[in-house]
Amino acid sequence: MDNTPLIFITNDDSTSAPGLRVLIEIMQRLGDVFVISPQGLQSGQAHAVTVNDPIRHALIKADGRAFNEYSCSGTPVDCVKIGLKVLLKETPDLLVSGINHGSNASINMLYSGTMAAAMEGALEGIPSIGFSLCEYGWNASFEHAKEPIYKIAKKVLENGLPDSTALNVNIPAISNEPLKGIKSCFQAQGRWDEDFDSRIDPRKQPYHWIKGKFVHDGLTEGSDLHALENNYISVVPVQTDFTNYQALELMEGDFDEN
Amino acid sequence: MDNTPLIFITNDDSTSAPGLRVLIEIMQRLGDVFVISPQGLQSGQAHAVTVNDPIRHALIKADGRAFNEYSCSGTPVDCVKIGLKVLLKETPDLLVSGINHGSNASINMLYSGTMAAAMEGALEGIPSIGFSLCEYGWNASFEHAKEPIYKIAKKVLENGLPDSTALNVNIPAISNEPLKGIKSCFQAQGRWDEDFDSRIDPRKQPYHWIKGKFVHDGLTEGSDLHALENNYISVVPVQTDFTNYQALELMEGDFDEN
Repeated sequence: MDNTPLIFITNDDSTSAPGLRVLIEIMQRLGDVFVISPQGLQSGQAHAVTVNDPIRHALIKADGRAFNEYSCSGTPVDCVKIGLKVLLKETPDLLVSGINHGSNASINMLYSGTMAAAMEGALEGIPSIGFSLCEYGWNASFEHAKEPIYKIAKKVLENGLPDSTALNVNIPAISNEPLKGIKSCFQAQGRWDEDFDSRIDPRKQPYHWIKGKFVHDGLTEGSDLHALENNYISVVPVQTDFTNYQALELMEGDFDEN
Repeated sequence: MDNTPLIFITNDDSTSAPGLRVLIEIMQRLGDVFVISPQGLQSGQAHAVTVNDPIRHALIKADGRAFNEYSCSGTPVDCVKIGLKVLLKETPDLLVSGINHGSNASINMLYSGTMAAAMEGALEGIPSIGFSLCEYGWNASFEHAKEPIYKIAKKVLENGLPDSTALNVNIPAISNEPLKGIKSCFQAQGRWDEDFDSRIDPRKQPYHWIKGKFVHDGLTEGSDLHALENNYISVVPVQTDFTNYQALELMEGDFDEN
Protein backbone atom coordinates (compact mmCIF):
# COMPACT_ATOMS: atom_id res chain seq x y z
CA MET A 1 0.00 0.00 0.00
CA ASP A 2 1.16 3.48 -0.88
CA ASN A 3 1.76 5.61 2.22
CA THR A 4 2.23 8.84 0.29
CA PRO A 5 -0.55 11.19 1.41
CA LEU A 6 -3.26 11.81 -1.17
CA ILE A 7 -4.35 15.44 -1.37
CA PHE A 8 -7.66 16.55 -2.91
CA ILE A 9 -7.46 20.01 -4.52
CA THR A 10 -10.30 22.19 -5.77
CA ASN A 11 -11.22 25.89 -6.08
CA ASP A 12 -13.98 28.24 -7.22
CA ASP A 13 -12.02 30.38 -9.70
CA SER A 14 -12.01 27.63 -12.37
CA THR A 15 -9.42 25.37 -13.94
CA SER A 16 -7.54 28.27 -15.46
CA ALA A 17 -6.95 30.22 -12.23
CA PRO A 18 -3.30 30.92 -11.40
CA GLY A 19 -4.07 30.40 -7.68
CA LEU A 20 -5.02 26.77 -8.38
CA ARG A 21 -1.69 26.12 -10.13
CA VAL A 22 0.24 27.57 -7.19
CA LEU A 23 -1.72 25.41 -4.74
CA ILE A 24 -1.00 22.29 -6.80
CA GLU A 25 2.70 23.13 -6.88
CA ILE A 26 2.78 23.51 -3.07
CA MET A 27 0.79 20.33 -2.42
CA GLN A 28 3.03 18.24 -4.67
CA ARG A 29 5.74 18.79 -2.05
CA LEU A 30 3.46 17.02 0.47
CA GLY A 31 1.99 14.12 -1.49
CA ASP A 32 0.14 12.86 -4.55
CA VAL A 33 -2.56 15.16 -5.85
CA PHE A 34 -6.07 14.74 -7.19
CA VAL A 35 -7.42 17.95 -8.74
CA ILE A 36 -10.97 18.75 -9.81
CA SER A 37 -12.02 22.33 -10.50
CA PRO A 38 -15.02 24.09 -12.03
CA GLN A 39 -14.95 24.73 -15.80
CA GLY A 40 -16.28 28.25 -15.30
CA LEU A 41 -16.04 31.01 -12.73
CA GLN A 42 -17.91 30.01 -9.57
CA SER A 43 -17.22 32.99 -7.34
CA GLY A 44 -20.07 33.66 -4.96
CA GLN A 45 -21.50 30.18 -5.45
CA ALA A 46 -21.33 29.41 -1.72
CA HIS A 47 -22.55 25.91 -0.85
CA ALA A 48 -24.66 25.58 -4.02
CA VAL A 49 -25.16 22.09 -5.45
CA THR A 50 -26.48 21.33 -8.93
CA VAL A 51 -29.71 19.40 -8.43
CA ASN A 52 -31.81 20.51 -11.41
CA ASP A 53 -29.18 19.88 -14.12
CA PRO A 54 -26.84 17.01 -14.86
CA ILE A 55 -23.14 17.39 -13.96
CA ARG A 56 -20.28 16.54 -16.30
CA HIS A 57 -16.56 16.10 -15.81
CA ALA A 58 -13.58 15.87 -18.15
CA LEU A 59 -10.16 14.33 -17.66
CA ILE A 60 -7.29 16.81 -18.02
CA LYS A 61 -4.33 14.76 -16.88
CA ALA A 62 -3.66 11.25 -15.54
CA ASP A 63 -0.23 10.31 -14.22
CA GLY A 64 -0.63 7.19 -12.06
CA ARG A 65 -1.57 8.09 -8.48
CA ALA A 66 0.82 11.05 -8.43
CA PHE A 67 -1.24 13.51 -10.44
CA ASN A 68 -4.82 13.27 -11.64
CA GLU A 69 -6.73 16.29 -12.80
CA TYR A 70 -10.33 16.81 -13.91
CA SER A 71 -12.59 19.73 -14.71
CA CYS A 72 -16.28 19.74 -13.74
CA SER A 73 -19.32 21.58 -15.11
CA GLY A 74 -20.70 22.25 -11.64
CA THR A 75 -20.08 24.27 -8.50
CA PRO A 76 -17.16 23.85 -6.09
CA VAL A 77 -19.31 21.64 -3.83
CA ASP A 78 -20.28 19.57 -6.89
CA CYS A 79 -16.54 19.17 -7.58
CA VAL A 80 -16.01 17.75 -4.10
CA LYS A 81 -18.98 15.40 -4.37
CA ILE A 82 -18.11 14.14 -7.88
CA GLY A 83 -14.44 13.81 -6.96
CA LEU A 84 -15.08 11.86 -3.75
CA LYS A 85 -18.05 9.77 -4.85
CA VAL A 86 -17.50 9.13 -8.57
CA LEU A 87 -13.84 9.55 -9.49
CA LEU A 88 -11.63 8.74 -6.51
CA LYS A 89 -11.18 5.17 -5.36
CA GLU A 90 -9.76 6.11 -1.93
CA THR A 91 -10.42 8.71 0.76
CA PRO A 92 -7.94 11.59 0.56
CA ASP A 93 -5.84 12.52 3.60
CA LEU A 94 -6.35 16.24 3.11
CA LEU A 95 -8.64 18.52 1.10
CA VAL A 96 -7.48 22.00 0.11
CA SER A 97 -9.40 24.65 -1.80
CA GLY A 98 -8.03 27.76 -3.49
CA ILE A 99 -5.86 29.67 -3.57
CA ASN A 100 -8.80 32.01 -3.98
CA HIS A 101 -8.25 35.27 -5.80
CA GLY A 102 -9.81 37.57 -3.19
CA SER A 103 -10.46 37.62 0.55
CA ASN A 104 -12.79 35.18 2.27
CA ALA A 105 -12.31 36.74 5.68
CA SER A 106 -15.23 37.82 7.87
CA ILE A 107 -18.68 37.39 6.36
CA ASN A 108 -17.27 36.66 2.89
CA MET A 109 -17.10 33.12 4.23
CA LEU A 110 -20.88 32.82 3.70
CA TYR A 111 -20.73 33.56 -0.04
CA SER A 112 -17.52 31.71 -0.76
CA GLY A 113 -17.38 28.69 -3.05
CA THR A 114 -13.78 28.13 -1.94
CA MET A 115 -14.81 27.76 1.69
CA ALA A 116 -17.97 25.79 0.87
CA ALA A 117 -15.75 23.16 -0.79
CA ALA A 118 -13.68 23.00 2.41
CA MET A 119 -16.84 22.74 4.55
CA GLU A 120 -18.06 19.89 2.32
CA GLY A 121 -14.74 18.12 2.89
CA ALA A 122 -15.16 18.58 6.66
CA LEU A 123 -18.67 17.10 6.47
CA GLU A 124 -17.12 14.06 4.79
CA GLY A 125 -14.66 13.68 7.67
CA ILE A 126 -11.62 14.87 5.69
CA PRO A 127 -9.29 17.50 7.23
CA SER A 128 -10.04 20.47 4.98
CA ILE A 129 -8.62 23.95 4.43
CA GLY A 130 -9.60 26.89 2.24
CA PHE A 131 -6.82 29.29 1.25
CA SER A 132 -7.49 32.81 -0.02
CA LEU A 133 -5.26 35.70 -1.03
CA CYS A 134 -6.58 39.17 -0.24
CA GLU A 135 -6.09 40.38 -3.80
CA TYR A 136 -8.49 39.91 -6.70
CA GLY A 137 -6.15 40.33 -9.68
CA TRP A 138 -5.47 37.32 -11.89
CA ASN A 139 -1.79 38.35 -11.92
CA ALA A 140 -1.50 38.66 -8.14
CA SER A 141 1.76 37.46 -6.60
CA PHE A 142 1.54 34.30 -4.49
CA GLU A 143 5.28 34.08 -3.73
CA HIS A 144 5.02 35.20 -0.10
CA ALA A 145 2.13 32.78 0.52
CA LYS A 146 3.87 29.58 -0.52
CA GLU A 147 5.85 28.72 2.63
CA PRO A 148 3.04 29.55 5.09
CA ILE A 149 0.55 27.48 3.06
CA TYR A 150 2.99 24.58 2.98
CA LYS A 151 3.47 24.78 6.78
CA ILE A 152 -0.25 25.00 7.59
CA ALA A 153 -1.14 22.12 5.25
CA LYS A 154 1.71 19.98 6.65
CA LYS A 155 0.53 20.58 10.22
CA VAL A 156 -3.06 19.64 9.37
CA LEU A 157 -1.88 16.56 7.47
CA GLU A 158 0.04 15.48 10.58
CA ASN A 159 -2.43 16.43 13.32
CA GLY A 160 -5.86 16.48 11.67
CA LEU A 161 -8.62 18.87 12.69
CA PRO A 162 -11.57 18.71 15.10
CA ASP A 163 -14.72 16.98 13.77
CA SER A 164 -16.92 18.92 11.33
CA THR A 165 -14.43 21.80 11.33
CA ALA A 166 -12.46 23.30 8.44
CA LEU A 167 -9.86 26.08 8.39
CA ASN A 168 -10.47 29.41 6.67
CA VAL A 169 -6.99 30.76 5.91
CA ASN A 170 -6.57 34.26 4.48
CA ILE A 171 -3.28 35.74 3.35
CA PRO A 172 -2.57 39.48 3.04
CA ALA A 173 -1.69 40.75 -0.44
CA ILE A 174 2.03 41.13 -1.00
CA SER A 175 3.46 44.44 0.19
CA ASN A 176 6.81 46.06 0.93
CA GLU A 177 6.71 44.65 4.46
CA PRO A 178 7.26 40.90 4.96
CA LEU A 179 4.35 38.99 6.58
CA LYS A 180 4.48 39.26 10.39
CA GLY A 181 3.31 35.66 10.97
CA ILE A 182 0.20 33.52 11.39
CA LYS A 183 -2.64 34.09 13.88
CA SER A 184 -5.57 31.89 14.95
CA CYS A 185 -8.66 34.11 14.88
CA PHE A 186 -12.43 34.30 15.07
CA GLN A 187 -14.58 35.47 12.17
CA ALA A 188 -15.01 39.27 12.20
CA GLN A 189 -18.48 40.75 11.90
CA GLY A 190 -19.16 42.63 8.69
CA ARG A 191 -21.51 42.86 5.74
CA TRP A 192 -21.69 43.97 2.12
CA ASP A 193 -23.21 47.35 1.49
CA GLU A 194 -24.58 46.84 -1.99
CA ASP A 195 -24.96 49.64 -4.43
CA PHE A 196 -26.37 47.98 -7.55
CA ASP A 197 -25.22 49.24 -10.91
CA SER A 198 -28.56 49.48 -12.73
CA ARG A 199 -28.56 49.74 -16.54
CA ILE A 200 -30.97 49.59 -19.47
CA ASP A 201 -30.34 46.96 -22.16
CA PRO A 202 -30.74 47.56 -25.95
CA ARG A 203 -34.31 46.23 -25.68
CA LYS A 204 -35.04 48.96 -23.09
CA GLN A 205 -35.24 46.47 -20.24
CA PRO A 206 -33.58 47.21 -16.90
CA TYR A 207 -30.91 44.94 -15.44
CA HIS A 208 -28.61 45.13 -12.42
CA TRP A 209 -25.04 44.24 -11.61
CA ILE A 210 -24.26 43.51 -7.97
CA LYS A 211 -21.50 45.70 -6.67
CA GLY A 212 -20.83 47.18 -3.31
CA LYS A 213 -18.30 47.66 -0.62
CA PHE A 214 -17.51 45.53 2.37
CA VAL A 215 -18.18 47.30 5.65
CA HIS A 216 -17.39 46.38 9.24
CA ASP A 217 -17.91 48.01 12.59
CA GLY A 218 -14.27 48.16 13.64
CA LEU A 219 -11.29 45.82 13.75
CA THR A 220 -11.81 43.84 16.97
CA GLU A 221 -8.58 42.33 18.26
CA GLY A 222 -8.55 38.58 17.79
CA SER A 223 -10.64 38.72 14.60
CA ASP A 224 -9.44 37.70 11.15
CA LEU A 225 -9.81 41.24 9.79
CA HIS A 226 -7.65 42.61 12.61
CA ALA A 227 -4.93 40.04 11.90
CA LEU A 228 -4.96 40.74 8.15
CA GLU A 229 -4.90 44.50 8.70
CA ASN A 230 -1.73 43.97 10.74
CA ASN A 231 -0.11 41.87 7.98
CA TYR A 232 -0.66 38.49 9.65
CA ILE A 233 -2.13 35.43 7.96
CA SER A 234 -5.48 34.62 9.64
CA VAL A 235 -6.56 31.05 10.46
CA VAL A 236 -10.23 30.67 11.50
CA PRO A 237 -11.64 27.25 12.47
CA VAL A 238 -15.17 27.17 10.99
CA GLN A 239 -17.86 24.64 11.77
CA THR A 240 -20.78 23.04 9.97
CA ASP A 241 -23.05 23.41 13.03
CA PHE A 242 -24.72 26.82 12.65
CA THR A 243 -26.67 26.67 15.92
CA ASN A 244 -26.42 29.81 18.05
CA TYR A 245 -26.28 28.00 21.42
CA GLN A 246 -26.29 31.26 23.36
CA ALA A 247 -29.49 32.33 21.64
CA LEU A 248 -30.94 28.85 22.17
CA GLU A 249 -30.38 29.28 25.90
CA LEU A 250 -31.70 32.85 25.89
CA MET A 251 -34.90 31.96 24.10
CA GLU A 252 -35.52 28.81 26.18
CA GLY A 253 -39.20 28.18 26.12
CA ASP A 254 -40.09 31.30 24.14
CA PHE A 255 -41.33 29.33 21.18
CA ASP A 256 -41.98 26.02 22.91
CA GLU A 257 -45.50 24.62 22.99
CA ASN A 258 -46.57 21.22 24.15
CA MET B 1 -46.57 57.22 9.10
CA ASP B 2 -48.02 53.78 8.57
CA ASN B 3 -47.55 51.54 11.62
CA THR B 4 -48.68 48.37 9.89
CA PRO B 5 -45.69 45.98 9.91
CA LEU B 6 -44.02 45.44 6.55
CA ILE B 7 -43.11 41.81 5.89
CA PHE B 8 -40.54 40.75 3.28
CA ILE B 9 -41.31 37.34 1.74
CA THR B 10 -39.08 35.20 -0.45
CA ASN B 11 -38.34 31.52 -1.15
CA ASP B 12 -36.17 29.20 -3.24
CA ASP B 13 -38.86 27.13 -4.94
CA SER B 14 -39.79 29.94 -7.38
CA THR B 15 -42.75 32.23 -7.90
CA SER B 16 -45.05 29.36 -8.74
CA ALA B 17 -44.48 27.33 -5.56
CA PRO B 18 -47.64 26.60 -3.53
CA GLY B 19 -45.62 27.02 -0.30
CA LEU B 20 -44.97 30.68 -1.20
CA ARG B 21 -48.68 31.37 -1.67
CA VAL B 22 -49.49 29.83 1.72
CA LEU B 23 -46.80 31.94 3.39
CA ILE B 24 -48.16 35.12 1.78
CA GLU B 25 -51.67 34.25 2.96
CA ILE B 26 -50.42 33.77 6.56
CA MET B 27 -48.31 36.95 6.57
CA GLN B 28 -51.19 39.09 5.28
CA ARG B 29 -52.81 38.46 8.66
CA LEU B 30 -49.81 40.19 10.27
CA GLY B 31 -49.09 43.12 8.01
CA ASP B 32 -48.39 44.48 4.53
CA VAL B 33 -46.32 42.21 2.32
CA PHE B 34 -43.49 42.67 -0.14
CA VAL B 35 -42.78 39.50 -2.14
CA ILE B 36 -39.82 38.74 -4.39
CA SER B 37 -39.10 35.19 -5.50
CA PRO B 38 -36.83 33.49 -8.02
CA GLN B 39 -38.18 32.94 -11.53
CA GLY B 40 -36.79 29.41 -11.62
CA LEU B 41 -36.15 26.58 -9.20
CA GLN B 42 -33.31 27.51 -6.85
CA SER B 43 -33.18 24.48 -4.60
CA GLY B 44 -29.68 23.76 -3.36
CA GLN B 45 -28.50 27.27 -4.24
CA ALA B 46 -27.37 27.94 -0.66
CA HIS B 47 -25.90 31.42 -0.18
CA ALA B 48 -25.02 31.84 -3.87
CA VAL B 49 -25.02 35.37 -5.29
CA THR B 50 -24.99 36.21 -8.99
CA VAL B 51 -21.78 38.14 -9.60
CA ASN B 52 -20.85 37.11 -13.16
CA ASP B 53 -24.24 37.80 -14.77
CA PRO B 54 -26.69 40.68 -14.57
CA ILE B 55 -29.83 40.26 -12.47
CA ARG B 56 -33.32 41.16 -13.66
CA HIS B 57 -36.65 41.57 -11.91
CA ALA B 58 -40.25 41.84 -13.06
CA LEU B 59 -43.28 43.36 -11.36
CA ILE B 60 -46.10 40.87 -10.77
CA LYS B 61 -48.50 42.88 -8.62
CA ALA B 62 -48.63 46.35 -7.05
CA ASP B 63 -51.38 47.26 -4.60
CA GLY B 64 -50.24 50.32 -2.64
CA ARG B 65 -48.12 49.34 0.35
CA ALA B 66 -50.36 46.37 1.17
CA PHE B 67 -49.14 43.98 -1.49
CA ASN B 68 -46.17 44.25 -3.84
CA GLU B 69 -44.82 41.26 -5.67
CA TYR B 70 -41.82 40.77 -7.97
CA SER B 71 -40.00 37.90 -9.59
CA CYS B 72 -36.22 37.88 -9.95
CA SER B 73 -33.85 36.09 -12.33
CA GLY B 74 -31.34 35.34 -9.56
CA THR B 75 -30.87 33.24 -6.46
CA PRO B 76 -32.77 33.58 -3.16
CA VAL B 77 -29.95 35.74 -1.75
CA ASP B 78 -30.10 37.90 -4.91
CA CYS B 79 -33.84 38.30 -4.25
CA VAL B 80 -33.12 39.62 -0.76
CA LYS B 81 -30.42 42.00 -1.99
CA ILE B 82 -32.45 43.34 -4.95
CA GLY B 83 -35.58 43.63 -2.79
CA LEU B 84 -33.86 45.50 0.04
CA LYS B 85 -31.43 47.63 -1.97
CA VAL B 86 -33.23 48.37 -5.25
CA LEU B 87 -36.98 47.95 -4.87
CA LEU B 88 -38.02 48.69 -1.27
CA LYS B 89 -38.04 52.21 0.06
CA GLU B 90 -38.18 51.19 3.73
CA THR B 91 -36.65 48.52 5.96
CA PRO B 92 -39.05 45.63 6.56
CA ASP B 93 -39.97 44.63 10.11
CA LEU B 94 -39.68 40.91 9.39
CA LEU B 95 -38.25 38.70 6.66
CA VAL B 96 -39.70 35.24 6.04
CA SER B 97 -38.56 32.65 3.52
CA GLY B 98 -40.43 29.57 2.30
CA ILE B 99 -42.52 27.67 2.95
CA ASN B 100 -39.91 25.34 1.50
CA HIS B 101 -41.06 22.12 -0.11
CA GLY B 102 -38.72 19.76 1.74
CA SER B 103 -36.83 19.62 5.03
CA ASN B 104 -34.04 22.04 5.90
CA ALA B 105 -33.29 20.39 9.22
CA SER B 106 -29.81 19.27 10.24
CA ILE B 107 -27.09 19.74 7.65
CA ASN B 108 -29.61 20.57 4.90
CA MET B 109 -29.28 24.06 6.31
CA LEU B 110 -25.93 24.38 4.50
CA TYR B 111 -27.36 23.74 1.02
CA SER B 112 -30.62 25.59 1.51
CA GLY B 113 -31.52 28.67 -0.52
CA THR B 114 -34.52 29.18 1.78
CA MET B 115 -32.29 29.45 4.84
CA ALA B 116 -29.60 31.48 3.03
CA ALA B 117 -32.24 34.13 2.31
CA ALA B 118 -33.09 34.21 6.03
CA MET B 119 -29.37 34.44 6.94
CA GLU B 120 -28.98 37.34 4.50
CA GLY B 121 -31.90 39.08 6.23
CA ALA B 122 -30.21 38.53 9.62
CA LEU B 123 -26.97 40.02 8.23
CA GLU B 124 -28.99 43.11 7.29
CA GLY B 125 -30.30 43.41 10.85
CA ILE B 126 -33.84 42.23 10.01
CA PRO B 127 -35.51 39.57 12.20
CA SER B 128 -35.60 36.64 9.77
CA ILE B 129 -37.14 33.18 9.66
CA GLY B 130 -36.99 30.31 7.19
CA PHE B 131 -39.96 27.91 7.16
CA SER B 132 -39.78 24.42 5.65
CA LEU B 133 -42.24 21.56 5.40
CA CYS B 134 -40.74 18.07 5.58
CA GLU B 135 -42.43 16.95 2.40
CA TYR B 136 -41.20 17.51 -1.15
CA GLY B 137 -44.41 17.15 -3.14
CA TRP B 138 -45.79 20.23 -4.91
CA ASN B 139 -49.26 19.18 -3.70
CA ALA B 140 -48.24 18.77 -0.05
CA SER B 141 -50.75 19.92 2.54
CA PHE B 142 -49.80 23.03 4.54
CA GLU B 143 -53.05 23.22 6.54
CA HIS B 144 -51.55 21.99 9.85
CA ALA B 145 -48.63 24.44 9.47
CA LYS B 146 -50.62 27.65 9.19
CA GLU B 147 -51.37 28.40 12.85
CA PRO B 148 -47.88 27.53 14.16
CA ILE B 149 -46.23 29.66 11.44
CA TYR B 150 -48.53 32.55 12.30
CA LYS B 151 -47.68 32.26 16.00
CA ILE B 152 -43.91 32.03 15.49
CA ALA B 153 -43.86 34.97 13.06
CA LYS B 154 -46.04 37.05 15.40
CA LYS B 155 -43.70 36.38 18.32
CA VAL B 156 -40.62 37.35 16.30
CA LEU B 157 -42.36 40.47 15.01
CA GLU B 158 -43.11 41.48 18.61
CA ASN B 159 -39.83 40.48 20.31
CA GLY B 160 -37.20 40.47 17.58
CA LEU B 161 -34.25 38.05 17.50
CA PRO B 162 -30.66 38.18 18.77
CA ASP B 163 -28.15 39.95 16.46
CA SER B 164 -26.96 38.08 13.36
CA THR B 165 -29.29 35.19 14.17
CA ALA B 166 -32.14 33.74 12.10
CA LEU B 167 -34.61 30.96 12.88
CA ASN B 168 -34.66 27.68 10.98
CA VAL B 169 -38.19 26.33 11.43
CA ASN B 170 -39.09 22.87 10.15
CA ILE B 171 -42.58 21.41 10.19
CA PRO B 172 -43.37 17.68 10.05
CA ALA B 173 -45.40 16.49 7.06
CA ILE B 174 -49.08 16.11 7.81
CA SER B 175 -50.05 12.76 9.34
CA ASN B 176 -52.93 11.12 11.15
CA GLU B 177 -51.60 12.44 14.46
CA PRO B 178 -51.92 16.17 15.20
CA LEU B 179 -48.62 18.05 15.76
CA LYS B 180 -47.43 17.70 19.37
CA GLY B 181 -46.13 21.27 19.62
CA ILE B 182 -43.05 23.42 19.00
CA LYS B 183 -39.54 22.79 20.33
CA SER B 184 -36.40 24.97 20.38
CA CYS B 185 -33.52 22.78 19.18
CA PHE B 186 -29.93 22.60 18.05
CA GLN B 187 -28.93 21.51 14.54
CA ALA B 188 -28.53 17.72 14.35
CA GLN B 189 -25.39 16.25 12.81
CA GLY B 190 -25.86 14.47 9.52
CA ARG B 191 -24.68 14.32 5.95
CA TRP B 192 -25.76 13.31 2.46
CA ASP B 193 -24.56 9.95 1.26
CA GLU B 194 -24.49 10.54 -2.48
CA ASP B 195 -24.98 7.80 -4.96
CA PHE B 196 -24.73 9.54 -8.33
CA ASP B 197 -26.98 8.36 -11.11
CA SER B 198 -24.49 8.19 -14.00
CA ARG B 199 -25.79 8.03 -17.57
CA ILE B 200 -24.55 8.26 -21.16
CA ASP B 201 -26.05 10.95 -23.39
CA PRO B 202 -26.97 10.45 -27.10
CA ARG B 203 -23.51 11.77 -28.06
CA LYS B 204 -21.95 8.98 -25.93
CA GLN B 205 -20.78 11.41 -23.27
CA PRO B 206 -21.20 10.58 -19.57
CA TYR B 207 -23.19 12.80 -17.23
CA HIS B 208 -24.31 12.51 -13.61
CA TRP B 209 -27.38 13.38 -11.57
CA ILE B 210 -26.85 14.01 -7.90
CA LYS B 211 -28.99 11.77 -5.77
CA GLY B 212 -28.46 10.20 -2.42
CA LYS B 213 -29.89 9.68 0.98
CA PHE B 214 -29.59 11.73 4.10
CA VAL B 215 -27.84 9.87 6.90
CA HIS B 216 -27.34 10.70 10.56
CA ASP B 217 -25.71 8.98 13.49
CA GLY B 218 -28.77 8.79 15.72
CA LEU B 219 -31.49 11.12 16.93
CA THR B 220 -29.89 13.00 19.81
CA GLU B 221 -32.48 14.47 22.18
CA GLY B 222 -32.65 18.24 21.83
CA SER B 223 -31.80 18.17 18.12
CA ASP B 224 -34.11 19.28 15.32
CA LEU B 225 -34.24 15.78 13.83
CA HIS B 226 -35.30 14.34 17.19
CA ALA B 227 -38.09 16.91 17.53
CA LEU B 228 -39.35 16.29 13.98
CA GLU B 229 -39.24 12.51 14.43
CA ASN B 230 -41.51 12.99 17.46
CA ASN B 231 -43.97 15.13 15.48
CA TYR B 232 -42.86 18.49 16.94
CA ILE B 233 -42.06 21.60 14.92
CA SER B 234 -38.33 22.38 15.36
CA VAL B 235 -37.01 25.92 15.84
CA VAL B 236 -33.22 26.30 15.57
CA PRO B 237 -31.54 29.70 16.05
CA VAL B 238 -28.74 29.83 13.45
CA GLN B 239 -25.93 32.36 13.32
CA THR B 240 -23.80 34.00 10.65
CA ASP B 241 -20.63 33.57 12.73
CA PHE B 242 -19.20 30.19 11.69
CA THR B 243 -16.25 30.26 14.10
CA ASN B 244 -15.77 27.07 16.10
CA TYR B 245 -14.72 28.80 19.35
CA GLN B 246 -14.05 25.51 21.11
CA ALA B 247 -11.65 24.48 18.34
CA LEU B 248 -10.10 27.94 18.43
CA GLU B 249 -9.34 27.43 22.11
CA LEU B 250 -8.11 23.88 21.55
CA MET B 251 -5.70 24.83 18.79
CA GLU B 252 -4.43 27.93 20.61
CA GLY B 253 -1.01 28.59 19.29
CA ASP B 254 -0.83 25.50 17.06
CA PHE B 255 -0.67 27.55 13.90
CA ASP B 256 0.54 30.82 15.38
CA GLU B 257 3.87 32.22 14.26
CA ASN B 258 5.30 35.62 15.05
